[in-house]
Amino acid sequence: MESITMMGSPKSVNDSFLPNGTNGIKEEKTTIGILGSGDFAKSLTIRLIRCGYHVVIGSREPKCAADFFPHVVDVTHHEDAILKAHIIFVAIHREHYSSLWDLKHLLSGKILVDVSNNMRVDQYPESNAEYLSSLFPDCYVVVKGFNVISAWAMQLGPRDASSQVYICSNNVQARHQVIELARQMNFIPIDMGTLSSSREIENLPLRLFTPWKGPVVVAISLATFFFIYSFIRDIIHPYIKNQQSDFYKIPIEIVNKTLPIVAITLLSLVYLAGLLAAAHQLYYGTKYRRFPHWLENWLQCRKQLGLLSYFFAAVHVVYSMCLPMRRSERYSFLNTAYQQVHGNVDNSWNEEEVWRVEMYISFGIMSLGLLSLLAVTSIPSVNSALNWREFSFIQSTLGYVALLISTFHVLIYGWKRAFEEENYRFYTPPNFVIALVLPTIVILGKIVLLCPCVSKKLRLIKRGWEKSHFRENKSNTAAHVSPERVTVM
Amino acid sequence: MESITMMGSPKSVNDSFLPNGTNGIKEEKTTIGILGSGDFAKSLTIRLIRCGYHVVIGSREPKCAADFFPHVVDVTHHEDAILKAHIIFVAIHREHYSSLWDLKHLLSGKILVDVSNNMRVDQYPESNAEYLSSLFPDCYVVVKGFNVISAWAMQLGPRDASSQVYICSNNVQARHQVIELARQMNFIPIDMGTLSSSREIENLPLRLFTPWKGPVVVAISLATFFFIYSFIRDIIHPYIKNQQSDFYKIPIEIVNKTLPIVAITLLSLVYLAGLLAAAHQLYYGTKYRRFPHWLENWLQCRKQLGLLSYFFAAVHVVYSMCLPMRRSERYSFLNTAYQQVHGNVDNSWNEEEVWRVEMYISFGIMSLGLLSLLAVTSIPSVNSALNWREFSFIQSTLGYVALLISTFHVLIYGWKRAFEEENYRFYTPPNFVIALVLPTIVILGKIVLLCPCVSKKLRLIKRGWEKSHFRENKSNTAAHVSPERVTVM
Amino acid sequence: MESITMMGSPKSVNDSFLPNGTNGIKEEKTTIGILGSGDFAKSLTIRLIRCGYHVVIGSREPKCAADFFPHVVDVTHHEDAILKAHIIFVAIHREHYSSLWDLKHLLSGKILVDVSNNMRVDQYPESNAEYLSSLFPDCYVVVKGFNVISAWAMQLGPRDASSQVYICSNNVQARHQVIELARQMNFIPIDMGTLSSSREIENLPLRLFTPWKGPVVVAISLATFFFIYSFIRDIIHPYIKNQQSDFYKIPIEIVNKTLPIVAITLLSLVYLAGLLAAAHQLYYGTKYRRFPHWLENWLQCRKQLGLLSYFFAAVHVVYSMCLPMRRSERYSFLNTAYQQVHGNVDNSWNEEEVWRVEMYISFGIMSLGLLSLLAVTSIPSVNSALNWREFSFIQSTLGYVALLISTFHVLIYGWKRAFEEENYRFYTPPNFVIALVLPTIVILGKIVLLCPCVSKKLRLIKRGWEKSHFRENKSNTAAHVSPERVTVM
Repeated sequence: MESITMMGSPKSVNDSFLPNGTNGIKEEKTTIGILGSGDFAKSLTIRLIRCGYHVVIGSREPKCAADFFPHVVDVTHHEDAILKAHIIFVAIHREHYSSLWDLKHLLSGKILVDVSNNMRVDQYPESNAEYLSSLFPDCYVVVKGFNVISAWAMQLGPRDASSQVYICSNNVQARHQVIELARQMNFIPIDMGTLSSSREIENLPLRLFTPWKGPVVVAISLATFFFIYSFIRDIIHPYIKNQQSDFYKIPIEIVNKTLPIVAITLLSLVYLAGLLAAAHQLYYGTKYRRFPHWLENWLQCRKQLGLLSYFFAAVHVVYSMCLPMRRSERYSFLNTAYQQVHGNVDNSWNEEEVWRVEMYISFGIMSLGLLSLLAVTSIPSVNSALNWREFSFIQSTLGYVALLISTFHVLIYGWKRAFEEENYRFYTPPNFVIALVLPTIVILGKIVLLCPCVSKKLRLIKRGWEKSHFRENKSNTAAHVSPERVTVM
Repeated sequence: MESITMMGSPKSVNDSFLPNGTNGIKEEKTTIGILGSGDFAKSLTIRLIRCGYHVVIGSREPKCAADFFPHVVDVTHHEDAILKAHIIFVAIHREHYSSLWDLKHLLSGKILVDVSNNMRVDQYPESNAEYLSSLFPDCYVVVKGFNVISAWAMQLGPRDASSQVYICSNNVQARHQVIELARQMNFIPIDMGTLSSSREIENLPLRLFTPWKGPVVVAISLATFFFIYSFIRDIIHPYIKNQQSDFYKIPIEIVNKTLPIVAITLLSLVYLAGLLAAAHQLYYGTKYRRFPHWLENWLQCRKQLGLLSYFFAAVHVVYSMCLPMRRSERYSFLNTAYQQVHGNVDNSWNEEEVWRVEMYISFGIMSLGLLSLLAVTSIPSVNSALNWREFSFIQSTLGYVALLISTFHVLIYGWKRAFEEENYRFYTPPNFVIALVLPTIVILGKIVLLCPCVSKKLRLIKRGWEKSHFRENKSNTAAHVSPERVTVM
Repeated sequence: MESITMMGSPKSVNDSFLPNGTNGIKEEKTTIGILGSGDFAKSLTIRLIRCGYHVVIGSREPKCAADFFPHVVDVTHHEDAILKAHIIFVAIHREHYSSLWDLKHLLSGKILVDVSNNMRVDQYPESNAEYLSSLFPDCYVVVKGFNVISAWAMQLGPRDASSQVYICSNNVQARHQVIELARQMNFIPIDMGTLSSSREIENLPLRLFTPWKGPVVVAISLATFFFIYSFIRDIIHPYIKNQQSDFYKIPIEIVNKTLPIVAITLLSLVYLAGLLAAAHQLYYGTKYRRFPHWLENWLQCRKQLGLLSYFFAAVHVVYSMCLPMRRSERYSFLNTAYQQVHGNVDNSWNEEEVWRVEMYISFGIMSLGLLSLLAVTSIPSVNSALNWREFSFIQSTLGYVALLISTFHVLIYGWKRAFEEENYRFYTPPNFVIALVLPTIVILGKIVLLCPCVSKKLRLIKRGWEKSHFRENKSNTAAHVSPERVTVM
């Protein structure tokens, strides 16, 4: 009958970690131990029972805790629980780890699974798992994981198959046993290597949009600056000069002048990073030289910059479309009609103005369409349906086309007004002139890179060619991540 | 050479369930049996063959059926098929289960996989799998699964790796064998525990947006009510009072008055559920007391309510943006211009009206932007890229901000008109007054919960503190799901 | 202690492929061989080391290459590397495969994993893996896979769990070993069957939106045709006839006349394919007869046609909403106001025109809303959360409703103008008449299919009934994919 065992050779129940025992008919459930009797211990218990495991709870007050758990669970003392199981979840707070000190001899050879969470990032000098490992060095294995799952998701059960569980341990054997256990519990286990990753894993559930922080700060700073800039030029200047009170323009018009500049600047920043990386490679003649720290960070937040750019562009479109709905538009319109009648102008048509507006609206819609495609392919499940070449085509080729068209959108919006003195209020250039600075630099830079001589050299470098047979030493292997990425955008 | 076996100890071909036999070089494929020769049997066969299994079909008319299957398949009688395989798919209709009665002695010890589907939810008193199990109690194992996969997806092959297969059985061993088989067939197996889940699994492919039904009914009821309400106030009232025929307003203006009220009411309902849950916890002083049934259902459909709210808000935005495109707008505009000229009013500017409209459009766009972020994070793959803290920040913090801003949007739209008697046609309050009722209650409730004294007590309760040392008994473990969720919103 | 082995019976380190050795405590890492020392070899090495494997590199210049790899890696000669490992990645270019010829005797019985990529689709008569297999026929196994992963993603590590790896081999045993290896490396392995799939797998990373090509060509052709058609009718005709220069209409008005026709035509094409498939089944009285090649291709690109239709519809909405923002609109408005004043018309209200515009805008928004729902359910992760019935309801029922409403949108837009001679410039019908052709055919076709007599017959056919007891022969099993799909839309 051993013929139908799934995972191999006969094993004693105590030591095996799979729910199925040895025989097809006689079921001997694997026992998993849990030290601690809090909410997480309970959720973990329910999930384990559902997946066919036998659970033994180690509690300091087993009688009291027994009421709290389903009755099929064996609630007992710490010692007893440790004896009965090979894999033991340590579901107690870090401060109480030392209370297990007396049980050191029993824990020897067991797999301890640290599931603790901290309140703050890097709260302690070493990670909880490393601390637990240092307390019980004779006991061979300490594995980290499951802390990213909330007690609620743990209990909710297996339907939501998207939950990833990060697992690391210095002992490969133990790591793979817990990985298999996680898979049996319907999680997606992710192997994070040695215990040195435990700090990173413990910080994961505490992070709050970490990769977004830089780009959001940049976007908010740009938005604030350009809002104040437009406010001074378009509200303060006419008020000082002509006592004209245009304060009603603040909520919509000034905001709508700020949004597009931020959007196009952020989009330029996405591609500027790639250009600088290429320049770095060309200058040093190799792709094996590590980028400066700031450039690596910049390269890594291009997706966030791009999505923020799209968000600002989309909100700009909504604001623009709401312009004709405004009462101010209506009044100024009616007054213009009144003046036209009184001025006896039977046709106010201005062909140049008509063309300018038709063209820049048209270019604006086109770049919105392209940016939407870029945004849609950033949805993780759409992204993973694309191969590398398709992703690169969308993000790099279409992205540059979108930048080019947005630049035309701004250029046509500006038209000849950049050369009219009256637009240089307080001696400052109009918004659209500032909006053009970065995109122009990026487009010119890209044109240089596309020159046959430069692009050929860059292609050689990306294939591994080196100017001076420079070979990086073994330590900076991590630097290889970024050069590859440069080819993406 | 056994050294390269993947899954373990030597086993006889008949009993092993993995496609690879024992030796690395000599291949002995595992045989899987299928009883039945319909479309599903055929699709299943093709998938199994592709994944390296040998398939034996049991049919009542093997000669006739043989033409229907690929020639590598062994099409034979029921008896023969059962003898040759250890795992047997029962791909016949429930009504014919009893036809297997005579083969009872052969089926003993085999794993029967029920793959049947019903036509209606809860069509029979017990699930098909439970019925099959009751027919063959001596035969040890009955496993449920694969019924959610259409014959088409089954055949389409392994490229679409997203197909989940739900599996349950009272026998853990058998369940895990079928789980492993499903994994080898490139499905994502989901362990649903004991056979008591089979009813739920059989109902899964029959459900038609079950979690959406309640929220959709609420939304449609609200929409119908407010549509009729606006119709009476804005069309019937002026018709009766002034014989003014405004029926042209029905398709756009009346609809566009209905949509935003429904949207903001649905959004309030999302957060009202959480407030009531918190009030329940505060009142009873514990998180271990089960919520009333209606509240639990309400808590569980907040995501659907939120998405419907976003849908209504988005359609409201599209309607509003189309307002200036209408011919009616154009005519009323031209007539106003005519009157202004004839009245000789050279400036019709009304500063208060200008500010009101600029402000409420501005707040409207802001809340649309926030709601869009909430909607995007509801896309499953975006959602699963967020950790618990980020999800909570978006859904709870940003959600409340969106509700607050929407409320301002309505307040500014209303302006002073709530205090003008002429707006109380037929003695009914204007729409925007009704729209404000629920959001105001929710915002006030949230403010109360944020008071230091209340929030401190609530935090204690959520950490497990109890007013009167009340301990729930073992039976209501399911109630624990919801209290945790309260902290989400 | 063998009790805690995960995957089975004791095995020698050399031959086992799992990272964990035999014992729980003593760790003996599995050795994986890699022939080649380029970028991909390096990335692969880093990933394997992280997942707990020991890696041995076979290089022609081991001393030179050793600097390039982490120091824990054993960099040695080809011969030595082959001797030390059982699974060997062949990370060298196809042109150098023959250089391994001298090592043929050593490779016997090893698993060679081909990871090569080509520059063009179908570059060579046989796939690289088949070529490798033909070179070393005595050596038993050649497995294909990992080529879809870029060197960058390979190194980035396990966090991104969405990477799928396609694996095929004629040897089931070897295939499953590499599948398990891929799983241990945190990839999602997809079993593609025998080595004959290798050509398809090698083409995968080279494809550039292959399923999109047909639909995009159709969309662009339609767009070009209707753009020119509108240009001739609306720009050239008034210019020739009245010397009226309306060229300013090109960027927005002509484009915005083209987009909706393309959108509704593409949407009709989606459902026309299903109708033709149903007609084919009705005509031949069976679902087992293969569709013509063109129809099968058409059926398979319905999703792409639908998404393109939505894209065109969405852009059409944006263009329409931007119409009131245009300067041309403003001028024509002011001039109309001027004329109304001078003509002394105190009320220009045209009730019929008002109703027409209110109605067609209203229908347009409704169909946009429905199409948005269809588009959202095309996001892979949303799609996989729906069961077959829900997907069918959205795509088929809601889709037909959307088509019906769009048709009303066009009909009301046209109103009575289809019967006015002046709209037949150059004797061509107006755009909206052309736009109605295909939708009308599809809707009429659907109505025929919904007739009780026809729909009953079709239901019988889909359940497997056949007119003349026609039985397909064994060879055309592939044809079964499409008939099932017909029921989807």
